[in-house]
Amino acid sequence: MRIAELSRRTGVPVPTIKYYLREGLLPAGELTSPNQARYGEAHLHRLRLVRALVEVGGLSIAAVRDVLGALEDPEKSLHKAMGTVETAVAGTGATTDDEVAHEQAREFVTRQGWGYRPRSDAFQSLVSVLATARDIGLDSFPAQLDGYARAGTALAAQDLDYVLSAPTKDAAMEVVAVGTVLGDAALAAVRRLARREMSVRRDRGEREPGGPGSPERECADDDR
Amino acid sequence: MRIAELSRRTGVPVPTIKYYLREGLLPAGELTSPNQARYGEAHLHRLRLVRALVEVGGLSIAAVRDVLGALEDPEKSLHKAMGTVETAVAGTGATTDDEVAHEQAREFVTRQGWGYRPRSDAFQSLVSVLATARDIGLDSFPAQLDGYARAGTALAAQDLDYVLSAPTKDAAMEVVAVGTVLGDAALAAVRRLARREMSVRRDRGEREPGGPGSPERECADDDR
Repeated sequence: MRIAELSRRTGVPVPTIKYYLREGLLPAGELTSPNQARYGEAHLHRLRLVRALVEVGGLSIAAVRDVLGALEDPEKSLHKAMGTVETAVAGTGATTDDEVAHEQAREFVTRQGWGYRPRSDAFQSLVSVLATARDIGLDSFPAQLDGYARAGTALAAQDLDYVLSAPTKDAAMEVVAVGTVLGDAALAAVRRLARREMSVRRDRGEREPGGPGSPERECADDDR
Repeated sequence: MRIAELSRRTGVPVPTIKYYLREGLLPAGELTSPNQARYGEAHLHRLRLVRALVEVGGLSIAAVRDVLGALEDPEKSLHKAMGTVETAVAGTGATTDDEVAHEQAREFVTRQGWGYRPRSDAFQSLVSVLATARDIGLDSFPAQLDGYARAGTALAAQDLDYVLSAPTKDAAMEVVAVGTVLGDAALAAVRRLARREMSVRRDRGEREPGGPGSPERECADDDR
């Protein structure tokens, strides 16, 4: 297919596709004349991956390049590929020298029985959030972390099972590359849905939501 | 204090502070001469809030303005303020007309016994993620949602308790305004820490992490 069809089938504008080609995120098409190239299903699929990482994940072009590079490395173990993706997703968060926040984070991972990896992106990211909370005066924020650990542990097990359930290594690598990004976005949306549900019920003076089975209803009286 | 000190104490560059002033995110200081203003502790605190929303939350200026507006409205209930913050945080996600994804999301909220609010930002956000997953061919992605619901429900209860535990309504409003953003960032970091921990242990052939209590150790043999 030509670039116009690639654009139509993915919803990505032609100038954007050309940008991705120039940046090496998409391999070149097959030149059929000096100014025309043809693209196949592999390009289509790759372009969809790129779009997911950019639009849902908000990754920079450089980060997308790292993630795609991990996908293409046949020597790469799943574990190392996940490390590459985690670093790319974490982005270039500013490191902070807030020692109290660092200590809070260290105490937290220790309390969970996890390894203390102060140079890892995830740890630095946590320190950064804790430093911000201290800055604003949210002194009780660190107390939230243990609840996050319970949820985070359950989700991590689910994430890894999802990766390992893929039928082939290539498919598993794709789950690693995109699953993290989609999973974080889906969880954020689900958490908001749950908060909204709970907030509505508390606001009406109802009890907390219980298990599944409540009848479906459209909430016409909500203001949005 | 003058603007230079405001900058020094918050780490926000002077041109950025002036930008926030022009955009109305910060109230003007007290003019002591035609070209000089003085700022107080309230400005300091406000600037820290703005920076948290922008840097940790990645909110646009318009979204920050909405959130701060909710904070300042004395008539606003906590429930409505949370709604304003949720909308601002959700951002201007593209809506999608993928009917299958919409149906997947509808089935999901129904299965959880939650209200079906198709016009809400959270629901649209979920549809968008599901549409992207379908696009890439991650057909088993919707099966991840029930696990997210369990985590999301527990976290939502924790989030609301955190808001309601604030000593004053003003403090509660601040938790609503910034807590969501910090909480999402903290959860993402904690989830990555948990995934890393689990992946390392599986990679080494060890059993899954158990409860708290493992001795603290620095992981010198990890590659980062």
